[in-house]
Amino acid sequence: MNLSWWQGPRQPLDHVAWHKALARQRELTKPSGALGQLEALAVQLAALQGCERPSVERVWISLFAADHGVVAEGVSAYPQAVTGQMLSNFLRGGAAISVLARQLDAELEVIDLGLAVPQAPHPGVRQQPLGPGTANLMREAAMTPAQLAAALQVGREAVLRAQQGGAALFIGGEMGIGNTTSATALACWALQEPAHELVGPGTGLDDAGVAHKAAVIDVALQRHLPLIHSPQDALQRLGGFEIAALTGAYIACAQQGVIALVDGFICSVAALLAVRLNPSCREWLLFAHRSAEPGHALVLHAVQAEPLLDLGLRLGEGSGAALAVPLLRMACSLHNDMATFAEAAVAERSPT
Amino acid sequence: MNLSWWQGPRQPLDHVAWHKALARQRELTKPSGALGQLEALAVQLAALQGCERPSVERVWISLFAADHGVVAEGVSAYPQAVTGQMLSNFLRGGAAISVLARQLDAELEVIDLGLAVPQAPHPGVRQQPLGPGTANLMREAAMTPAQLAAALQVGREAVLRAQQGGAALFIGGEMGIGNTTSATALACWALQEPAHELVGPGTGLDDAGVAHKAAVIDVALQRHLPLIHSPQDALQRLGGFEIAALTGAYIACAQQGVIALVDGFICSVAALLAVRLNPSCREWLLFAHRSAEPGHALVLHAVQAEPLLDLGLRLGEGSGAALAVPLLRMACSLHNDMATFAEAAVAERSPT
Repeated sequence: MNLSWWQGPRQPLDHVAWHKALARQRELTKPSGALGQLEALAVQLAALQGCERPSVERVWISLFAADHGVVAEGVSAYPQAVTGQMLSNFLRGGAAISVLARQLDAELEVIDLGLAVPQAPHPGVRQQPLGPGTANLMREAAMTPAQLAAALQVGREAVLRAQQGGAALFIGGEMGIGNTTSATALACWALQEPAHELVGPGTGLDDAGVAHKAAVIDVALQRHLPLIHSPQDALQRLGGFEIAALTGAYIACAQQGVIALVDGFICSVAALLAVRLNPSCREWLLFAHRSAEPGHALVLHAVQAEPLLDLGLRLGEGSGAALAVPLLRMACSLHNDMATFAEAAVAERSPT
Repeated sequence: MNLSWWQGPRQPLDHVAWHKALARQRELTKPSGALGQLEALAVQLAALQGCERPSVERVWISLFAADHGVVAEGVSAYPQAVTGQMLSNFLRGGAAISVLARQLDAELEVIDLGLAVPQAPHPGVRQQPLGPGTANLMREAAMTPAQLAAALQVGREAVLRAQQGGAALFIGGEMGIGNTTSATALACWALQEPAHELVGPGTGLDDAGVAHKAAVIDVALQRHLPLIHSPQDALQRLGGFEIAALTGAYIACAQQGVIALVDGFICSVAALLAVRLNPSCREWLLFAHRSAEPGHALVLHAVQAEPLLDLGLRLGEGSGAALAVPLLRMACSLHNDMATFAEAAVAERSPT
């Protein structure tokens, strides 16, 4: 049987670096555990980078944009043209992720996977369109098997570029009016939950809008569930091009040995699908924040993630992941640059 | 009747800047509310700074160190000499707060308010000793009324230096073996709770140690409560020099118009006392994080704070506040630098 690339093994963790980093944490001039989550984070980064003193200075952000046929069912507060309009905003520097990329001195690339309203070609956008958005998942499969394979590959190629660019950290972002509907349908399949347990307002639906969105997802699930026998089937029937690209990217991160920092609800659903396709990739995924989208908590629980931030964010674009980057950098600085008790001639705790 | 300085009025908020900043938030290219807590934060910073586009580039950290007589009762996992030993570590750059101050390009000053084990004079330490630590609060008042007034004043002077230095943000830090015992006793008084509801492991007591610490605090409360008729009385009988200095600093921040970012449990107790002494100062206090110390949640609730981080930190030194600074800075950048819908020619949400 022919294995697909996404079933290949992930890079192993470095257990020597892990033990050295853990020992170092215990010697730093602070009570053991006093830096909370940041201590385990530094040790995990050390094990992933194979280096007692890790660093995440170079950050790469790939923003995947695509449209969704299901928007025809009235599931979003914004018109579909916004997906394309935001592409220009990303590149001109006016979007949230553009501002944050500058602040972090991060590389930001924007990938067009297929828009419903064609845009004038923009030199800064990487054009990899797979169609004018997905088909309407309430009525048919969102994409063909060939489109799915291509979308996964687009994600993988982004990670290869990031690695070529010397990135220590990969952030995937997404933009696509209607993509919380697709992501929620995927999460319902993965977690075996009905739509009303996971559905949320996305960019800002009111209660009636949320109920309608749940009804659309339930119809879609009824249509597709009998035909879904694998995570690939789920992604092909319920996914979006940008969601599949993110899934491919997260698996490629683990295979290439690039740490991935996962953003909010949609990215976490893509990460959940990545773990279902290739469970070994989980260790290479860090989770940035718990978003305001109600389904996010259940998805995070399913991948046993303890995110760093909980600020009620629900913007996407990779913005929540970007906001967590300084915590990763400071966790590294504390781990690398604090003095040990011996170096500082500070007494350790009294014997108990 | 003569008013003390800490009863004087705080600087007012700028309501014009508040309204302008709020209007700007609604026009930025994102769904309204999508940046969660960071949106209200940017608007609050604008109102405090009297400027539609706020900024917190210059950060000042004053670290107040002092010893606690109650350590004689065996309430800490570390020997008292550590307070003084850590002073050198702060200045040589090996402590957590030193590393973070460098990372943030922040000014860090260290103030010695009174150590049990005298240290060789260090040119980098500001010497303002009020005695060899406080008296043992289990057996007598922790300080005299004159020591309390002096400690409050030390805090105020630090804020005046920060303002002189052009700081947009003041962080108070603390170092003092035994100071969670003092802070917990103060919180018990302020919240009218018994010690076992608030007490925690501090730098790392085991269960028996925590129970002993609670018993020590209960004895102290029994002794002092009948004699406490005001927040001043509470600070004088149960406080520490560094805790009183922090209280004075927070009130001075509000009076001088310098934004204060409050660190963990001990700083939050000092902030609670500041609000009890002068309720109008509350608006100038931002709360950085929810610490692992169990009493912190109740103290935060009492001041109606929604902190930015929840990472299980319990180090003190101002480190948790320093870790939250990038979020403040990014909240400002997003607010100031994102494009509006009109600027970016992006469609707003569909009419509902």
